Amino acid sequence: MTNYLMNTWYQAGFADEIAVGDKLARTICEIPLLFYRRSDGCLTALVDRCPHRFAPLSAGKVDGDTIFCGYHGLGFGADGKCNHNPHGPIVSALAVRSFPVAERHTIIWVWLGDPEKADAALIPDLSYIDETPPQARTCGYMPTAANYQLLSDNILDLSHADYLHPDTLGGINTTAKSNSRLEGDTVVVDWLAENCDPPQAFRATIHGANRADIWTQVVWQAPALMTLGVAAVPAKQPRKWEDEGYTLHNMVPETRALLPWQRAS
Amino acid sequence: MTNYLMNTWYQAGFADEIAVGDKLARTICEIPLLFYRRSDGCLTALVDRCPHRFAPLSAGKVDGDTIFCGYHGLGFGADGKCNHNPHGPIVSALAVRSFPVAERHTIIWVWLGDPEKADAALIPDLSYIDETPPQARTCGYMPTAANYQLLSDNILDLSHADYLHPDTLGGINTTAKSNSRLEGDTVVVDWLAENCDPPQAFRATIHGANRADIWTQVVWQAPALMTLGVAAVPAKQPRKWEDEGYTLHNMVPETRALLPWQRAS
Amino acid sequence: MTNYLMNTWYQAGFADEIAVGDKLARTICEIPLLFYRRSDGCLTALVDRCPHRFAPLSAGKVDGDTIFCGYHGLGFGADGKCNHNPHGPIVSALAVRSFPVAERHTIIWVWLGDPEKADAALIPDLSYIDETPPQARTCGYMPTAANYQLLSDNILDLSHADYLHPDTLGGINTTAKSNSRLEGDTVVVDWLAENCDPPQAFRATIHGANRADIWTQVVWQAPALMTLGVAAVPAKQPRKWEDEGYTLHNMVPETRALLPWQRAS
Repeated sequence: MTNYLMNTWYQAGFADEIAVGDKLARTICEIPLLFYRRSDGCLTALVDRCPHRFAPLSAGKVDGDTIFCGYHGLGFGADGKCNHNPHGPIVSALAVRSFPVAERHTIIWVWLGDPEKADAALIPDLSYIDETPPQARTCGYMPTAANYQLLSDNILDLSHADYLHPDTLGGINTTAKSNSRLEGDTVVVDWLAENCDPPQAFRATIHGANRADIWTQVVWQAPALMTLGVAAVPAKQPRKWEDEGYTLHNMVPETRALLPWQRAS
Repeated sequence: MTNYLMNTWYQAGFADEIAVGDKLARTICEIPLLFYRRSDGCLTALVDRCPHRFAPLSAGKVDGDTIFCGYHGLGFGADGKCNHNPHGPIVSALAVRSFPVAERHTIIWVWLGDPEKADAALIPDLSYIDETPPQARTCGYMPTAANYQLLSDNILDLSHADYLHPDTLGGINTTAKSNSRLEGDTVVVDWLAENCDPPQAFRATIHGANRADIWTQVVWQAPALMTLGVAAVPAKQPRKWEDEGYTLHNMVPETRALLPWQRAS
Repeated sequence: MTNYLMNTWYQAGFADEIAVGDKLARTICEIPLLFYRRSDGCLTALVDRCPHRFAPLSAGKVDGDTIFCGYHGLGFGADGKCNHNPHGPIVSALAVRSFPVAERHTIIWVWLGDPEKADAALIPDLSYIDETPPQARTCGYMPTAANYQLLSDNILDLSHADYLHPDTLGGINTTAKSNSRLEGDTVVVDWLAENCDPPQAFRATIHGANRADIWTQVVWQAPALMTLGVAAVPAKQPRKWEDEGYTLHNMVPETRALLPWQRAS
């Protein structure tokens, strides 16, 4: 197994993807996972593999607070222990690992490491999501056949926009005032392009002004949660909070993927 | 190479697939094999790789009792020894391994292990096939991208039908009287569901009766030959031989495939 | 990495594929390579991976004598050293390996081994290409999902035509007078089929004659450059130079591919 950061909260999905009685299969850090929502509205996260004959539990059925395997009908509760065996006694080996799971900021979080260390206070503060009216938010998935760390690599240096996206977003960051700093466990990088020729993507925002002050910011938290802030205003005008937009890029490793320097030659 | 059982008979095909002068390529236990039928009606089984420049012999031509390689024309007889070399002398290295092969119960069998131990008496007794009129038999292949042992795993426990096939075959075996036993080298499992509500698939057989006695049986022989017997009769009626139907599931490993517990995490 | 012959010239393409300012990406011996033509008309060959964040340089832009990475804009000159860094100082680690490259006989050649040993005099003499008028030449690529050595194996023994191509080229070489010899580092094999029934492919050449004298020759140079000569004349007529045709088969290994005897079993 690759070296994944285990004592951390990973995003498994969005809270509204699982209604009561629904289930969701995910693979995170090469671990197959089953999520389902119990009748009390809380989520359960289990290893997605029946300990009997190894079928994926996610191919089974949720009934009440139990997931029933679709192969031979064994049932497992929120603690991962078998609570129903149609074929014989319930022995202690009939159990799957259960993981701490939480819901916050519209996101489902799962803790794959030492359960003793699973502290909901360690969930990153993304309260800007909650403060945004639902009709002003959008979310989705971007499955990517590459090592997840390459995406942090990409976003942490927004000067790439000048070279990869010259006709839309680029042209301002290589020459902008830039500042990088460590704030606790967080990496923060700011760019401020003052009195610049606004790239195409910002022109609607500044209502036809010819020159703009454009602020961009990346906040990185381990292993790969990034918040990208941006605000464009006509040059020399003050930046107000309603000018700011935030995008969360929350990279989650599913399976192993090599980094470029791990390849041959 | 995976640990395959070698001193055993594997099914390579059906006898009627190869007429005199025909050939057939198969891979069993990762060994590429060529089968062809000689002019005396008997079969030859050879490693399917010319010892000269390693082309598959199965891409060549059968002429009389010889397979001629399609690359440079070398010929090999039933013993695997070269009997024709258009380019020079026939040296002893010009030979491929030959395997014991037999035909019984409409099936072609090949022995990949120690040829000294290849005893046709070890071919499983499937005389129920011969006793069945041809028009009452059917056969075919089911290529499966999974470890062949998982199929034994599946069939040995027919209670899975209650969960995987609830609308057709299921509903009777989890609660049936069941008996498992070892008979010599054979594993036998019986189920008897008495006075049961007949599953959909059995209703035509019992001519509209509301309750049925349904007997099912699995006989397993190493490495993965299984005979599945079934008989459904109206409840409390005696079971006669003509009520019984038999299905042979003869799993043959072609190439390696991992079992679920051999995967990561 | 497989054992490739490194101190040798490999063909990377055809000279007319890269005009001034153009670029070409190739993988040879598992090494990703970028070729581009500078303003002085000469070619540069570099490892196709930016040392900054490992993007392929071939996805960037050539401007003058510099290749600019398309990810963050770093520029590299013909010696592989960074000559432009929009983000900070140019440190010595900002460099990629540069390879000796040459153009001769319409072909681009690259030397991947010890640069001290890169001697243009070691480029095989293919002056028959230059002596042929352009309108009488043709060239192209044949991407092949197999170990490149198997192609030498194929061409070195033209008797295969009798078995693989019996209706077009075959029927004469197994029985022809044949001679194999080592001339310095070159392997030469000749076949002369005298007074033979001409195979289909030669009939137009001999203008309807019923019998022909057909000469074929293979010249092999390490690692896998082969020149195939052929001349067909009506039987007993002298062979003149204008009867001869030559085909270069220049096999270049891109990535590793197993040979048949390196596979399982």
